[in-house]
Amino acid sequence: MNAPLKAVGSPDKLAATLLDIGRAARDAARVLALASPAQKNRALAAMAKAVRGAKTAILTANAKDLAQAKSAGATAAFLDRLALDGAKIDAMAAGLDAIRKLKDPVGEIMASWRRPNGMRIERVRVPLGVIGVIYESRPNVTVDAGALCLKAGNAAILRGGAESFRSVQAIHAALTEGLIEAGLPAAAIALVPTPDREAVGMMLSGLGGAIDVLVPRGGKSLVERVQKEATVPVFAHLEGVCHVYVDAKAKLPMAKSIVLNAKMRRPGICGAAETLLLDRAAAPRFLQPLVTMLIEAGCEIRGDATVQAADPRVKPATEADWSTEYLDAIITFGVVDGVDAAIAHIERYGSHHTDAIVTEDKKAADKFLREVDSAIVLHNASTQFADGGEFGFGGEIGIATGRLHARGPVGVEQLTSFKYRIHGSGQTRPS
Amino acid sequence: MNAPLKAVGSPDKLAATLLDIGRAARDAARVLALASPAQKNRALAAMAKAVRGAKTAILTANAKDLAQAKSAGATAAFLDRLALDGAKIDAMAAGLDAIRKLKDPVGEIMASWRRPNGMRIERVRVPLGVIGVIYESRPNVTVDAGALCLKAGNAAILRGGAESFRSVQAIHAALTEGLIEAGLPAAAIALVPTPDREAVGMMLSGLGGAIDVLVPRGGKSLVERVQKEATVPVFAHLEGVCHVYVDAKAKLPMAKSIVLNAKMRRPGICGAAETLLLDRAAAPRFLQPLVTMLIEAGCEIRGDATVQAADPRVKPATEADWSTEYLDAIITFGVVDGVDAAIAHIERYGSHHTDAIVTEDKKAADKFLREVDSAIVLHNASTQFADGGEFGFGGEIGIATGRLHARGPVGVEQLTSFKYRIHGSGQTRPS
Repeated sequence: MNAPLKAVGSPDKLAATLLDIGRAARDAARVLALASPAQKNRALAAMAKAVRGAKTAILTANAKDLAQAKSAGATAAFLDRLALDGAKIDAMAAGLDAIRKLKDPVGEIMASWRRPNGMRIERVRVPLGVIGVIYESRPNVTVDAGALCLKAGNAAILRGGAESFRSVQAIHAALTEGLIEAGLPAAAIALVPTPDREAVGMMLSGLGGAIDVLVPRGGKSLVERVQKEATVPVFAHLEGVCHVYVDAKAKLPMAKSIVLNAKMRRPGICGAAETLLLDRAAAPRFLQPLVTMLIEAGCEIRGDATVQAADPRVKPATEADWSTEYLDAIITFGVVDGVDAAIAHIERYGSHHTDAIVTEDKKAADKFLREVDSAIVLHNASTQFADGGEFGFGGEIGIATGRLHARGPVGVEQLTSFKYRIHGSGQTRPS
Repeated sequence: MNAPLKAVGSPDKLAATLLDIGRAARDAARVLALASPAQKNRALAAMAKAVRGAKTAILTANAKDLAQAKSAGATAAFLDRLALDGAKIDAMAAGLDAIRKLKDPVGEIMASWRRPNGMRIERVRVPLGVIGVIYESRPNVTVDAGALCLKAGNAAILRGGAESFRSVQAIHAALTEGLIEAGLPAAAIALVPTPDREAVGMMLSGLGGAIDVLVPRGGKSLVERVQKEATVPVFAHLEGVCHVYVDAKAKLPMAKSIVLNAKMRRPGICGAAETLLLDRAAAPRFLQPLVTMLIEAGCEIRGDATVQAADPRVKPATEADWSTEYLDAIITFGVVDGVDAAIAHIERYGSHHTDAIVTEDKKAADKFLREVDSAIVLHNASTQFADGGEFGFGGEIGIATGRLHARGPVGVEQLTSFKYRIHGSGQTRPS
């Protein structure tokens, strides 16, 4: 099960292997697109059972990956993302059960209308096709990505990080077992069978038309490369420079609670706030309490002149800070002249991911929600809700800040396309 | 008004000019995205008035284009597409009025749901951004494309064919007049200010991130180039190899009427049928009448052996014929073993554009509509309904066969994106 980490061979051999995988995935996508919800769910149930059954094999593989990563000098954070234990494997299996219980999106009639000539037109949800997922050190993405694609009737081509190759391979073997048990093609969830880094480049060009969309999951350099070099569409976000704007008409306790949660609940997620903007009209009342609260919570503040004046522990914010995604207990904090200035600031420095306003003023809230051009805009709620699970999507393959097809959390629905079905009774088009 | 056809200058100068246009379009897109429906409609009304008022100027410009095209040896069909007259200009203005009367898609709440914690999540329609439209000899695309983009709150960058440059420029001047009269930025509908062919290549790479999506309108070679070389998403279809499958359970009069309309109403549109498939079980009753009808209507038939045997005027179909888009009074005609074989044939030779089944058998119809993987599938109706106007979209910028974002007729709704608005009352995310 734990194959040695060897390259497929020459670049030509690798290219041929990947093109074969692409063709097989395309064929499998056609089978999946027509598979019944029950059959897909049988596969998901069998996959969960197989993952639970493969616990020892997965942990053995993971131990080898960890040992190699350690000896290669990986950071503690990296090892933490890579490491699996029994509880994490149970969580993967539970994730499969949760995805199985989601509503099957395929075949849903999204809209239906009748034309004056009597024809009925239906817009029906269909799968997208083949989804390429490129990820880094978290082996559990194998399960999430494979299962979400399957639920939406798509084939997946997965490419895990080289450092997690053995773990991913062991997990993938369990997924394959489940597919086969349910009578679905093993090629429906393919794994690039080599840690060769060249494989990523080949996926970026779509494997000869086999990949419909790419989803990168990992650090900024991976996402940046995929967005820059891919010649197929990409669902991704490069960064989440998320803002909380506290308006003069906010209630202080609510503002404090939302700011603290948005920044400090988990500073490392993409929906964590990176910049706090405070309405100048509220500064006399709110500035001190917000600064004190953040510092006492262990958050470093980089502020403009007004914020620096509030506390000697505030560091000066540089121009670069305003567009920095810290993913850490650091926040940039500035004072602005009302909601219009807040919106202008966010449009200038933000990343169109997730931004929030705290206010009791409905007019200011409506303006903010309308004019801030981000995938997710919130009124009186924490930016950390930027998550498919929190939206009720039952899982997500990532968050997209692009404007085409998917935007915001990418769940099973966003992994589908549609077609038009027209029901006639002999209609012809007049000349 | 009718500027001489001169190049902008060096490639560097052209690139700088186009980048400036891109930046101005991006800024204009932000203004348009926040413009009220009334303001956009004021612009559309003013544009219609300006187009009507510019009739003489447009016809003068068109006469120069025509004279130059003629002396360059353009075909009659080409000159026909290029030529304008008073009625065609009135039709352009009427098109602007029709688009003005469409429902404004921006701000529509597409879905709304409440979460267990009390937050209300709304999915709201917003504009896409900046749309690049590359078209060939039909000057009226200037109006359709500009107006549809405007209605959906998008800026447009238009690049008309070099041979129609003067005509397009005169029409564009009228659109600009309307925008300015309504207080909208002239850059909202930009025209590439030169017939230089290099400009197309620059648009394909998105003008430094300024173009969100490209729409090619024209012949196969243009679409092929755009699909192949563009590094931004494309809404298009390369060809429409559309099928009509006549099932054994069809009524002959309906089958005849649909086949005749699908092929012969306008053989040159993308929704025209190119292949007729007949259920072998119906051949003894239907083959002869269908062959005779088509030949009498002036349609050339290229048939398989069975169809050839029905009439000496039937020519043999080559392997290439089955996947050829004739756009002419020619049809490939084959006999297949039932609906499964018809579906397999369409998946093998078709272009995923528009395909129809004629039958009274609901089970066969459902199977066909489900399994044929095309943007539009019809039961008992003509393939020539593949058109945004016929769908009730009130206009279309084209038909897309891709699976991402837009599929089928691309109307104002398909030219939008969405965002999530979350209404809370102080919610924070539990750890």
